[in-house]
Amino acid sequence: MIKVGIVGGTGYTGVELLRLLAQHPEVELTAITSRTEAGMPVAEMFPSLRGRVALKFTTPDEAKLNECDVVFFATPHGVAMAQAKELLANGVKVLDLAADFRLKDVKEFAKWYGMEHNCPEILAEAVYGLPEINRDAIKKARVVGLAGCYPTSVQLGLAPLLSPKSTGGKHLIDGTHIISDSKSGTSGAGRKAEIGTLLSEASDNFKAYSVKGHRHLPEIEQGLKAIAGHDQIGLTFVPHLTPMIRGIHSTLYVRLTEAGKDVDYQKLYENFYKDEPFVDVMPAGSHPETRSVRGSNGIRIAIHRPGGGDTLVILVVEDNLVKGASGQGVQCMNLMFGLPETTGLTQIAVSP
Amino acid sequence: MIKVGIVGGTGYTGVELLRLLAQHPEVELTAITSRTEAGMPVAEMFPSLRGRVALKFTTPDEAKLNECDVVFFATPHGVAMAQAKELLANGVKVLDLAADFRLKDVKEFAKWYGMEHNCPEILAEAVYGLPEINRDAIKKARVVGLAGCYPTSVQLGLAPLLSPKSTGGKHLIDGTHIISDSKSGTSGAGRKAEIGTLLSEASDNFKAYSVKGHRHLPEIEQGLKAIAGHDQIGLTFVPHLTPMIRGIHSTLYVRLTEAGKDVDYQKLYENFYKDEPFVDVMPAGSHPETRSVRGSNGIRIAIHRPGGGDTLVILVVEDNLVKGASGQGVQCMNLMFGLPETTGLTQIAVSP
Amino acid sequence: MIKVGIVGGTGYTGVELLRLLAQHPEVELTAITSRTEAGMPVAEMFPSLRGRVALKFTTPDEAKLNECDVVFFATPHGVAMAQAKELLANGVKVLDLAADFRLKDVKEFAKWYGMEHNCPEILAEAVYGLPEINRDAIKKARVVGLAGCYPTSVQLGLAPLLSPKSTGGKHLIDGTHIISDSKSGTSGAGRKAEIGTLLSEASDNFKAYSVKGHRHLPEIEQGLKAIAGHDQIGLTFVPHLTPMIRGIHSTLYVRLTEAGKDVDYQKLYENFYKDEPFVDVMPAGSHPETRSVRGSNGIRIAIHRPGGGDTLVILVVEDNLVKGASGQGVQCMNLMFGLPETTGLTQIAVSP
Amino acid sequence: MIKVGIVGGTGYTGVELLRLLAQHPEVELTAITSRTEAGMPVAEMFPSLRGRVALKFTTPDEAKLNECDVVFFATPHGVAMAQAKELLANGVKVLDLAADFRLKDVKEFAKWYGMEHNCPEILAEAVYGLPEINRDAIKKARVVGLAGCYPTSVQLGLAPLLSPKSTGGKHLIDGTHIISDSKSGTSGAGRKAEIGTLLSEASDNFKAYSVKGHRHLPEIEQGLKAIAGHDQIGLTFVPHLTPMIRGIHSTLYVRLTEAGKDVDYQKLYENFYKDEPFVDVMPAGSHPETRSVRGSNGIRIAIHRPGGGDTLVILVVEDNLVKGASGQGVQCMNLMFGLPETTGLTQIAVSP
Repeated sequence: MIKVGIVGGTGYTGVELLRLLAQHPEVELTAITSRTEAGMPVAEMFPSLRGRVALKFTTPDEAKLNECDVVFFATPHGVAMAQAKELLANGVKVLDLAADFRLKDVKEFAKWYGMEHNCPEILAEAVYGLPEINRDAIKKARVVGLAGCYPTSVQLGLAPLLSPKSTGGKHLIDGTHIISDSKSGTSGAGRKAEIGTLLSEASDNFKAYSVKGHRHLPEIEQGLKAIAGHDQIGLTFVPHLTPMIRGIHSTLYVRLTEAGKDVDYQKLYENFYKDEPFVDVMPAGSHPETRSVRGSNGIRIAIHRPGGGDTLVILVVEDNLVKGASGQGVQCMNLMFGLPETTGLTQIAVSP
Repeated sequence: MIKVGIVGGTGYTGVELLRLLAQHPEVELTAITSRTEAGMPVAEMFPSLRGRVALKFTTPDEAKLNECDVVFFATPHGVAMAQAKELLANGVKVLDLAADFRLKDVKEFAKWYGMEHNCPEILAEAVYGLPEINRDAIKKARVVGLAGCYPTSVQLGLAPLLSPKSTGGKHLIDGTHIISDSKSGTSGAGRKAEIGTLLSEASDNFKAYSVKGHRHLPEIEQGLKAIAGHDQIGLTFVPHLTPMIRGIHSTLYVRLTEAGKDVDYQKLYENFYKDEPFVDVMPAGSHPETRSVRGSNGIRIAIHRPGGGDTLVILVVEDNLVKGASGQGVQCMNLMFGLPETTGLTQIAVSP
Repeated sequence: MIKVGIVGGTGYTGVELLRLLAQHPEVELTAITSRTEAGMPVAEMFPSLRGRVALKFTTPDEAKLNECDVVFFATPHGVAMAQAKELLANGVKVLDLAADFRLKDVKEFAKWYGMEHNCPEILAEAVYGLPEINRDAIKKARVVGLAGCYPTSVQLGLAPLLSPKSTGGKHLIDGTHIISDSKSGTSGAGRKAEIGTLLSEASDNFKAYSVKGHRHLPEIEQGLKAIAGHDQIGLTFVPHLTPMIRGIHSTLYVRLTEAGKDVDYQKLYENFYKDEPFVDVMPAGSHPETRSVRGSNGIRIAIHRPGGGDTLVILVVEDNLVKGASGQGVQCMNLMFGLPETTGLTQIAVSP
Repeated sequence: MIKVGIVGGTGYTGVELLRLLAQHPEVELTAITSRTEAGMPVAEMFPSLRGRVALKFTTPDEAKLNECDVVFFATPHGVAMAQAKELLANGVKVLDLAADFRLKDVKEFAKWYGMEHNCPEILAEAVYGLPEINRDAIKKARVVGLAGCYPTSVQLGLAPLLSPKSTGGKHLIDGTHIISDSKSGTSGAGRKAEIGTLLSEASDNFKAYSVKGHRHLPEIEQGLKAIAGHDQIGLTFVPHLTPMIRGIHSTLYVRLTEAGKDVDYQKLYENFYKDEPFVDVMPAGSHPETRSVRGSNGIRIAIHRPGGGDTLVILVVEDNLVKGASGQGVQCMNLMFGLPETTGLTQIAVSP
């Protein structure tokens, strides 16, 4: 059994980790920390866990995280980088659901997250947690910075068009003018007391936000460059808030180059993802719905080429709390500990 | 492995059965029938099942239901009673999610469902599918008429107040003037093209319906009488439609008799349900939320006595598609086949 | 033109007042105060008012409220009672949307609102703002404590059963065991940053709250006693949160006395409300929906007597921000200034 | 008073017309037809109109539409073109909310709507009902084909970039590769019994649809060409269904040409729309929300240029049933009858 600790379990990614890990056959939940809630049974805050998770929140000191095999950080940005060093020194692996180990460039990190990175040496060894792209590196990693929710959908939606494995090195699309029009449910904003995501404000409403520049933009661009193996990547990324709890739908628009005009993209995608347990390339003409992955670790993709023109439209759906966060964390953990990748992740979507 | 057939799999209880049974370790899904959709892969209608259920819908003839060990009817009222006889004759057990085997009085059935009961001899042997009340009978049953969604919440909410096991035969409440103010999500109305449950009509809206008399009223009264062991039971039952997909919340009001005034109801309930795996009596003062059971087979109950007066308020939540329908069906199936009752029903609620 | 000031305009009752008053033909909006937002144009916080309300938030000092004809308090409890005296001394009328002038018993006020009442002499003269019950007193009032949202629905739902005008002094119902099962949209919780009313928490969910005792309970009981003209009134009041923005649905249960068994309640209600412009007694058998009053000052009522028994079920819907708050405030203002009662309140519900 | 008839009043655009026209000071509602509901009071089907609209549905024969001054068609496609000729011959003006008089090319109409156009001579004289673009022609029109809901948002969102009035004839953008990622609430699908828009299906869900080609695509392209005065226009249009009742949010992406790189687009838009009563160009950096126009005839636009690059992002919101349908109809009617354009259209958005 893998001894698992969770730092910061009072948010949505925390409770989702608990839901998944409590049903994971190879995991022993050892500790979950919260400074503010220490002493409270987890199931008192989250009644959905009554009868299933007996743990109480503890202070970090009581938690004896150094005795865990792996620690998940479901914390605000900046926490994992402060604690990772000691954990690693004690042989504990680290999985961060926040952004501390995503951006490789510490200047970019400082610019987008408003704080200095205080642990660049570990950042250097950290592996980006997106298994479909990075599987081998994750298997050997001591510390993984899990991909963000939006970035997961955009990168997996575009990888077959950019990866030399798939394209044979040809530039099929104009990578400098990619558009990602992404829509997220409100759980992506976290379990925080804020007026903007009250039901009275966000229900029966739709809006874009952060059009000027969202933190996930540099992460996506870094990822796409790594996938493509070159730097000619430019993204216009517009996130929107849609009145639902879970789910991300990214609608991706790319323009084909001359070299890309005669490719069968349905086949290209099916081929690229044919061995992936969590990626479903849907039949041509499909419109994936976010509810088809609600509560599951799946990601579904459909490819369209309206009117046979030179614009390709890729539709991608995921559950932002599962494949976009906690499920992806468990998937990476499985890889890091040599377990079958789908262990504990076989939930079927709850739909309707 | 238990060979399971499903008749009428295109509704919400059908797809929910598939979600649960596809993850059940002792079940082999053998056939699912739909006259209108024969030939279509189930996962084409329900993309949430892509990669998990390979079955196609078949006609009843092709389905070879007689070779199953058990057949679930997820059909409109009237279908199960037409087919049960032949299945039973072939040694196939029957679980009906509709109302064909709920009301013991065929006149009541005819009055509320608008059709004659054409199989009274099997009705006579049918067991009412509410395991917490009827466990032993279900274990031995060949045919089970599963409790309705509202009736499950109301009966389990009131059983400790009425059952002689719990009351020692005392009349703790005035059973003749029970009030059940129940609220359901729209999935209770089924997967039917109707204007009244369009999102444009039912969202951001709240209403009562069928105040004059709802089909579940006689079922609940029959059940409460059986639990109480007497006939002095009268219920005012007002169902409401609330803008959510899943979930029932029943708010029950009963007036205490003199004999009932000195009872510790929190203890009474905890004691009554202490060995039940799916019934959670919450701590005094709790307010159960429907999302705390979303997608799970749990039912949560809280007991209040406002101002210490003579009115008791019992709050009950369940997922109408799980504990109120398909999950309860699997629970009964487990009992009928000698499996541990929780087999395949350990899903934790998806929340948020 | 009536010069109107608003104290505390950053909440939902504040913006709703602005929506209504900006379209009121006899009103000149003079000032709206907010200490925290002073200087910000109102329409910047509430873009729905862009192009329609040019005011900026000001500090109370700048607002020159003493020069208004009337001041609305859309503030937390405790603010109006601190400022009413000076305004009245300057000849300014006061309408309080909070609870400062609702409960006549200062001990009850202290018990339920957790603060001493510091203005009992004005409380003594304050009129309860429920025009259908109190019209004449409101016309002459200098200070009105507007009825709460739930209390409006419950009192108007029960008045025909209790008022001697209607009953001729007979006790038609057992007034000591009234049940009000009430459901509210989330806007009733106000525009406050809180986790419990986030869309991620409150959407696709249903729950009761404050079953132990809600602040509106003493207000309703006080009101019903005044209507009935006697003290034999007892209420079990259970409020629920339903996933919608606006609307209250109260389902009221009363037991008929012998004297009440032969009454035609449909007629009784129609007769009682026949001259009321905002109260709609729907045809027998109706199920009023909250959306049928969304954004309007109407209240709709339907009366049921299931199975012809001795339990009467009354269904009441209102928009909690209009008839349950700001619209009722405008209605009272119209009365206080001798205007036709419906002035500025002729909006038709937005439905769907 | 203008005598107004409505053909086909049982859908959402019909009831919205009633809401607006019942409050219009210059309108006398004369008739509303429905073959299926003839004899039923309108307010019985739409209780929000109780006490405000006394009309009953009548058959077209009884309705005496020839005696009206103007007739609105809130019908399925194909109805208006069958009846317009006779009405016009009787001096009755015609406003069609369906698509019969939108596409000027009858072949395109046949291709997208699956029926022959049987009234091409009236189509030839019909004016496209988008007042901000076509005001003068509408004033003189006998028959107006109202702009569709999506097309209104896209055309008004792009007009300042394409109209020679605004651009001085320069090509500021690459008009051949415009992207419109549009999101609509479910009321856009109409008041039709369909599974796909049930609350159980469409709530807590997000999906694209008709990516292959939506009927509004040719209408938008026709409109943009007319605005631009040239034919180099190509659009990728992807509509999405979002779980809300009302509202459209179009996110538009265009690439600037060299000639377009030094333009102040905020000013360009403000200038273009400076005299428009219903178009609100929001301050730079804004994110318009659909709720800010809920129930009103307003349209709000914000312009972004992320990172100062060559991609312009335009955000547009409208209420699909008001500015996208019935409100626009009333606006056109006002123009056709020489009334101030805002008559009867001064509702402030209901928000929250």
